[in-house]
Amino acid sequence: MPAPASTVTAESVIRPDHAVVTLINTFTVEPADQQRLIEIWQRSTEETIRHLPGFVSANIHRSLDGSKVVNYAQWESRESFIAMLNDPDAAAWLRRLAEIGTPAPVLCEVVSVHRNSDVGR
Amino acid sequence: MPAPASTVTAESVIRPDHAVVTLINTFTVEPADQQRLIEIWQRSTEETIRHLPGFVSANIHRSLDGSKVVNYAQWESRESFIAMLNDPDAAAWLRRLAEIGTPAPVLCEVVSVHRNSDVGR
Repeated sequence: MPAPASTVTAESVIRPDHAVVTLINTFTVEPADQQRLIEIWQRSTEETIRHLPGFVSANIHRSLDGSKVVNYAQWESRESFIAMLNDPDAAAWLRRLAEIGTPAPVLCEVVSVHRNSDVGR
Repeated sequence: MPAPASTVTAESVIRPDHAVVTLINTFTVEPADQQRLIEIWQRSTEETIRHLPGFVSANIHRSLDGSKVVNYAQWESRESFIAMLNDPDAAAWLRRLAEIGTPAPVLCEVVSVHRNSDVGR
């Protein structure tokens, strides 16, 4: 499956300014299901979730050992995240994801960002 | 404790170009220990880890419910991450963190980045 168009040049920024809430959701999967979970998560994001109010970004990661898929997602507020959970289309996608793996969502705020000692910013 | 100097204007970027490996490490803690774990993780990063070869960034998050601390860390390669684990000073910090909470590290690569439908990039 080709990458969704929005991934081609997209990037997300992590800053310690508390302007977003961050949902770090780690799904545990059978390695044979990792790629399928990724593709459904990409479709749910492109078709539904990124169009909802308050969505900022989703950043989908695969674990190198095959056993996890992690979405690092940013929302404008806790309220917009809760509203997504109650959106019928989004909820249907989340149920479909939960049929393939076991989610472990953590709702966070950024405390601090540390860069290597060779860069100025 | 004041924020370390490097956090003031620092930011990190997530891109789907596989130029880094990402370690998403979720510590489970007693809520009474969350702030102490954060401060030790900040000190370990500022004093030791960010000076090691291949370190790109560390991004420390607190869960809103108090029960987790998540570090979203970027390394230039899997090899530089493994070398950090074998650095005596870094290993001493990691042991100290593990006395306060229970780590769950996941070594990842970025698959895709999705932005909201209102932004061009």
